[in-house]
Amino acid sequence: MIVPIRLNPVAPKAYDIVIDSLPKLDFDTKVAIVTNPTVAALHLERVMASIEAPQIEVVEVPDGEEYKNMDTLLSILDSLFEKRFDRKSLLIALGGGVIGDMTGFAASIYQRGIDFIQIPTTLLSQVDASVGGKTGVNNRFGKNLIGSFYQPKAVYIDPDFLKTLPEREYAAGIAEIVKMAVMFDAEFFDFLEESDLKSPDNVERMIARSVSLKAEVVNMDEKEAGIRAVLNYGHTFGHVVENETSYSRYLHGEAVAIGMVMANMLAVELGLLSEEEAERVRRLLERNSLPTRYRIEDGEEFYEHFFLDKKSMNGKIKFILPGGSIGSHRIVEDLPKDVVMKVLDKMAGA
Amino acid sequence: MIVPIRLNPVAPKAYDIVIDSLPKLDFDTKVAIVTNPTVAALHLERVMASIEAPQIEVVEVPDGEEYKNMDTLLSILDSLFEKRFDRKSLLIALGGGVIGDMTGFAASIYQRGIDFIQIPTTLLSQVDASVGGKTGVNNRFGKNLIGSFYQPKAVYIDPDFLKTLPEREYAAGIAEIVKMAVMFDAEFFDFLEESDLKSPDNVERMIARSVSLKAEVVNMDEKEAGIRAVLNYGHTFGHVVENETSYSRYLHGEAVAIGMVMANMLAVELGLLSEEEAERVRRLLERNSLPTRYRIEDGEEFYEHFFLDKKSMNGKIKFILPGGSIGSHRIVEDLPKDVVMKVLDKMAGA
Repeated sequence: MIVPIRLNPVAPKAYDIVIDSLPKLDFDTKVAIVTNPTVAALHLERVMASIEAPQIEVVEVPDGEEYKNMDTLLSILDSLFEKRFDRKSLLIALGGGVIGDMTGFAASIYQRGIDFIQIPTTLLSQVDASVGGKTGVNNRFGKNLIGSFYQPKAVYIDPDFLKTLPEREYAAGIAEIVKMAVMFDAEFFDFLEESDLKSPDNVERMIARSVSLKAEVVNMDEKEAGIRAVLNYGHTFGHVVENETSYSRYLHGEAVAIGMVMANMLAVELGLLSEEEAERVRRLLERNSLPTRYRIEDGEEFYEHFFLDKKSMNGKIKFILPGGSIGSHRIVEDLPKDVVMKVLDKMAGA
Repeated sequence: MIVPIRLNPVAPKAYDIVIDSLPKLDFDTKVAIVTNPTVAALHLERVMASIEAPQIEVVEVPDGEEYKNMDTLLSILDSLFEKRFDRKSLLIALGGGVIGDMTGFAASIYQRGIDFIQIPTTLLSQVDASVGGKTGVNNRFGKNLIGSFYQPKAVYIDPDFLKTLPEREYAAGIAEIVKMAVMFDAEFFDFLEESDLKSPDNVERMIARSVSLKAEVVNMDEKEAGIRAVLNYGHTFGHVVENETSYSRYLHGEAVAIGMVMANMLAVELGLLSEEEAERVRRLLERNSLPTRYRIEDGEEFYEHFFLDKKSMNGKIKFILPGGSIGSHRIVEDLPKDVVMKVLDKMAGA
């Protein structure tokens, strides 16, 4: 006998990303703001003043990627249990990508799932990490290997938070914006080349365009069965760079900048990008104080490290490359090792 | 500016529950069978013989509810990483409810979610735990407090597994079947009263009816926003009994049997069930070797313990009761404490 399970279709998940000054937020449930001491010192007072709720708790976790692990995650859950948070309670992620990824993951497994809201405070999390519902923590096997797809109820992106952001972190955010332009929008790339990316109007425009592009991709392919993989441009190489330098030399966005330059070298090799356009990307990154050079010590070892990435655990490396020119993309699989090694060997001399 | 996220509606989650001899299963991905030594000794050989896959791993976890925690869960994930399982790999839960709940939870967070299949081997997990996608682990604050809603790709219910099941565990499964009948189906209740519940034909019929009823409920309300809460009949009281006896005196199904008798006393008090029908339920449970009496030491304390349940963490107790007679249900909230205490005080003299 067969009993069919045909779950009632629910309304498609829908929510808004608001790019504006943080509005007044009014909740009728318990709220916990998850943040770290650095962000709290800068922004907590203002955020607290914007929120009305019957009970507001603050859950602080240590600042830094090295604390993005299950221990920290379980400590967040414990705080919520101790404060008797129930299934209607709400979490607010106040911080960068690490805070957002962990808060979303905690929300997804606390009592089988409660609501959460993103208030990203770094450029990188405003244009990338806070959009799309990827949550997770790292473990000794790699980055974001434990987690879930879990969408927030809303994302509030307030460019004002960026005024206190260190320049290096600001630049790291630019890298993800350049990524979106190279993959999807040649005009946007022109704009990035020609504009002062620190003037408030341009900042808001750049965030809005980046978020819109990412939202389109996520709307089409939430769980990365297809086109969402394009957002990993620069990341296949970048993850290896991060790993080889123990996640301590480069910020994530910096490693992605290096990774895009490497990916472009491969694209040039395959005839998918002209030397000139590759050079334009490199110049744009450098003008924004991003690193573009990385000396590979051992090409063979670098190649082996591709397989530590969860996208390559099946033994195949998925390269995301420009698809002929800036503003287009192509996913290349099953590339012969010697073609890749040719590029890696060039970097060994870089 | 507002960027809308409107995720593409995916096809509603659909899969089959197959009640039959375990069929041949053929996979083109890595497979890990998660089980415990007790189940492995009885059934692993047969299950392995039914499965074709390029690579089959066995992940054993210790047997028992006391190991249903994050430590065990993380050890399952570690095994998968060590064996380089990727996002296409598949988990198979082979065992009772503890194995099913943990395997489902592990599948839901391994690399943000991989497929899993349920092969339940106890009566309780065949008729209840394996159906509906609730996953989770316990922690020091209570049962199933960390977890997710995550549906399997298929459930294979083979009544043959029950031949080696200890009688006490078999009876515990009957309790959840009686629950379904009392809440939803008076004719099914008659059948349970009149039939030999150990003859193979009746066993299969009883499983099929129970699973069908549960599937209907889950199809309507996957995430327990409404009617799915009815499945907690007997559980509100039962959880307190389990907690007061440190989860060691009673099997879950036994505590549910006691809990149903308590819920029925409350229902009689509220005029929602006749004394005669309450007595019929008690007799059916006793005829199936289930406990129906529990001496409450301290009524006030018992009442306080209701609030440890995640359903009552918001300070309200949700009682699930018959809705006038056997075969019907009613959710009662905001009951005055003195009405509940009257029933609890009766049990203190029981």
